[in-house]
Amino acid sequence: EVREQFAGLHAADQADLFELFDRDRRQKLLEAIGARLDPEALAELERPVRDALVEMLGPKRVAEAVAELNEDDAVYVLDALSEEQQKAVLAAVAEDIRRPLEEGLAFGEDTAGRLMQRDFVAVPAYWSMGQVIDYLRSAEDLPDEFYSIYVIDPAFRPIGWVPLDRAMRTKRPIRIGDIMEADPVVFRPEMDVEDVAYEVRQYDLTSAPVVDESGRMIGVIMVDDILDVVEEEAEEDLFQISGVREDDLNRSVFRTTRTRFSWLVINLVTAILASVVIGFFDATIEQVVALAVLMPIVASMGGNAGTQTLAIAVRALGTKDLTAANAMRQVSKELLVGVLNGIAFAILIGLATYVWFSDPILGGVIAAAMVLNMIIAGLAGILIPLGLDKAGVDPAVSSAVFLTTVTDIVGFFAFLGLGALFLL
Amino acid sequence: EVREQFAGLHAADQADLFELFDRDRRQKLLEAIGARLDPEALAELERPVRDALVEMLGPKRVAEAVAELNEDDAVYVLDALSEEQQKAVLAAVAEDIRRPLEEGLAFGEDTAGRLMQRDFVAVPAYWSMGQVIDYLRSAEDLPDEFYSIYVIDPAFRPIGWVPLDRAMRTKRPIRIGDIMEADPVVFRPEMDVEDVAYEVRQYDLTSAPVVDESGRMIGVIMVDDILDVVEEEAEEDLFQISGVREDDLNRSVFRTTRTRFSWLVINLVTAILASVVIGFFDATIEQVVALAVLMPIVASMGGNAGTQTLAIAVRALGTKDLTAANAMRQVSKELLVGVLNGIAFAILIGLATYVWFSDPILGGVIAAAMVLNMIIAGLAGILIPLGLDKAGVDPAVSSAVFLTTVTDIVGFFAFLGLGALFLL
Ligand SMILES: [Mg+2]
Ligand SMILES: [Mg+2]
Ligand SMILES: [Mg+2]
Ligand SMILES: [Mg+2]
Ligand SMILES: [Mg+2]
Ligand SMILES: [Mg+2]
Ligand SMILES: [Mg+2]
Ligand SMILES: [Mg+2]
Ligand SMILES: [Mg+2]
Ligand SMILES: [Mg+2]
Ligand SMILES: [Mg+2]
Ligand SMILES: [Mg+2]
Ligand SMILES: [Mg+2]
Repeated sequence: EVREQFAGLHAADQADLFELFDRDRRQKLLEAIGARLDPEALAELERPVRDALVEMLGPKRVAEAVAELNEDDAVYVLDALSEEQQKAVLAAVAEDIRRPLEEGLAFGEDTAGRLMQRDFVAVPAYWSMGQVIDYLRSAEDLPDEFYSIYVIDPAFRPIGWVPLDRAMRTKRPIRIGDIMEADPVVFRPEMDVEDVAYEVRQYDLTSAPVVDESGRMIGVIMVDDILDVVEEEAEEDLFQISGVREDDLNRSVFRTTRTRFSWLVINLVTAILASVVIGFFDATIEQVVALAVLMPIVASMGGNAGTQTLAIAVRALGTKDLTAANAMRQVSKELLVGVLNGIAFAILIGLATYVWFSDPILGGVIAAAMVLNMIIAGLAGILIPLGLDKAGVDPAVSSAVFLTTVTDIVGFFAFLGLGALFLL
Repeated sequence: EVREQFAGLHAADQADLFELFDRDRRQKLLEAIGARLDPEALAELERPVRDALVEMLGPKRVAEAVAELNEDDAVYVLDALSEEQQKAVLAAVAEDIRRPLEEGLAFGEDTAGRLMQRDFVAVPAYWSMGQVIDYLRSAEDLPDEFYSIYVIDPAFRPIGWVPLDRAMRTKRPIRIGDIMEADPVVFRPEMDVEDVAYEVRQYDLTSAPVVDESGRMIGVIMVDDILDVVEEEAEEDLFQISGVREDDLNRSVFRTTRTRFSWLVINLVTAILASVVIGFFDATIEQVVALAVLMPIVASMGGNAGTQTLAIAVRALGTKDLTAANAMRQVSKELLVGVLNGIAFAILIGLATYVWFSDPILGGVIAAAMVLNMIIAGLAGILIPLGLDKAGVDPAVSSAVFLTTVTDIVGFFAFLGLGALFLL
């Protein structure tokens, strides 16, 4: 009965069930369901769990599943296999299925070529709607799903498309070329999926053609795959900024520890750098211990203010809302926000310090350091991602560590330096 | 010529252009293009820019635009208006357009009712494909776009759907009820769009029916709108974790300063709390200044490690990959990762400290504090979002500040406390 219930689940839910289970229960579930695993569930699994299942299933059963999948999903599954596994699986599928899969694997990860589906419906512009309908009703090799009919020229270049709702409303004698939308948005197979997703979302597309260097149509991007890309890219920015190098929910403890370690090492270096700055002022601290008590406040407020700006800037770069056209305006804005909030928090912390330590000069020192660090934080929060982006580096990946290095060092240096000047 | 070029742009690109411009250039552009603004561009604009444009256009021209929009987009535009503006615009549209808009506005923000389109194609199961085709070819009031034909029972409840590609391949005599997919995923109008988006993505839907309390079909959710929801929800988590309360790229300096201020105030309080903890140990610091020099390292490493866990946990809660079923397993995993990385960094920082200050006991103190804080950080990073989620609070909104409060306080207290015990 487990078997029947499981078979009734959507592939994506089957995949989730495996992800929620631990190793032992996965094994048991797989044994219990026998051959009832939907091949598409393999494509829906997070990679670590898929690796485990592929191991349990063995190359022959994986090959059977791969043969049933759409090519984009099959390539996705194959790509994650080890080289030997991949060879074993490819050897076990029929020649006519293997060829397109090998072509798909030849495209880089995260490219339109990997994401595209190779089956689509394309007809010449001189066909009538009646011809199209008769073709669709009788053709054997149509894709499982399609959302548009593409119109191609004699060189197989897409010159237009007809959304299916429009096709359904069109009478048989009408020429396809007369009702098509001209000049479709087309993608090249080497394009980054992130840029593809941007255009699909911008222009509300449900599918769009992929063309080779001669403009020939070779595939089609489908919106359901773009939904996943949009989710993953936005999530990726959060993870990168937070120092998560890969989505490790389903990774082993050891691998998770190792990938998180590498980011933490970089942070350790910047934390030690900040300590070196504090070390310059050890004689000052010895005389005015209140400086040690208060110094984390300036540094941490700068870090928090800078992180706000950074999050906005990184996402805006990703969604092309921050470009050369408005960069200067946004930088001036962050400068102004930094000045205003800097003044506000200088007053707050200056008064609090005065009350706490009954020392107006200490209050003035922390207020001045706060203004300075908040301004630097705002500027660093936008200039660092802009600079990385201009240098061709993904701003999400490394801007957070640069930012906190700046805000820590400026925070400690300004506060302790002013303290040394005015309090000794 | 500006006018012609602008009119050739897609609505989403028209909107982006306005967003990239500053106030003056927006005004000039609007004057230059006259009536050539695509009504849909209004719906694509970020709210602050839309507010400005609505102001410039005046209620009469806004009403004309609203009347041309799909209802979901019209409601979206109307919702952002001030009460007087909304009244003025609604008064200027025809009665038959106003009614559905008022109904749409009655649903809460971020609900399926707001997002849905009210026009859809629904037919009874006993119709033949031929009847459907003839209906589609002759009906006047069809939606601009649709991806499926819904099959309804006599009470207007959706009992199935036929994707348009399947409809196109079906011969005229065949009964719709025989080729439909049964048991469609349906949504209720009060459902949160985030949950709607989850199911659309999970089940690869292009559209899905919305039903009222009696099960009657009242609208349809379209995938292009879900693309925007997915992007916004993932982005929202990044913003919330980073302390950004709203996407403020296009807000005024004053409003941006004010909304960021409120988050920074909370952080100021936690920073002062951490300072109070340090204040307990001022006598110790006076004697061993090295403690002041090193103390930010322990706190900041805890913050960074905790943030890694937090980002994973918050997203996994949002995508339903972290649930009661695997919460215990993930908590134990974070505990283990915290122990392992804690030991690794204890060794690194212990040795570095020993070399720097030639003091083995100081090295031991910082190593012990590091292990403790890394473990607490891992646990807090997952338990705080889990707890908030269980309490019905969005874990993205407030977990970051709880986390750093914990890692700062534990970090300073453990390091300085152990220092007081072993170094005096
Ligand atoms: Mg899943
Ligand atoms: Mg990417
Ligand atoms: Mg869109
Ligand atoms: Mg739209
Ligand atoms: Mg696909
Ligand atoms: Mg990215
Ligand atoms: Mg945007
Ligand atoms: Mg836009
Ligand atoms: Mg999907
Ligand atoms: Mg899929
Ligand atoms: Mg819509
Ligand atoms: Mg959310
Ligand atoms: Mg939400």
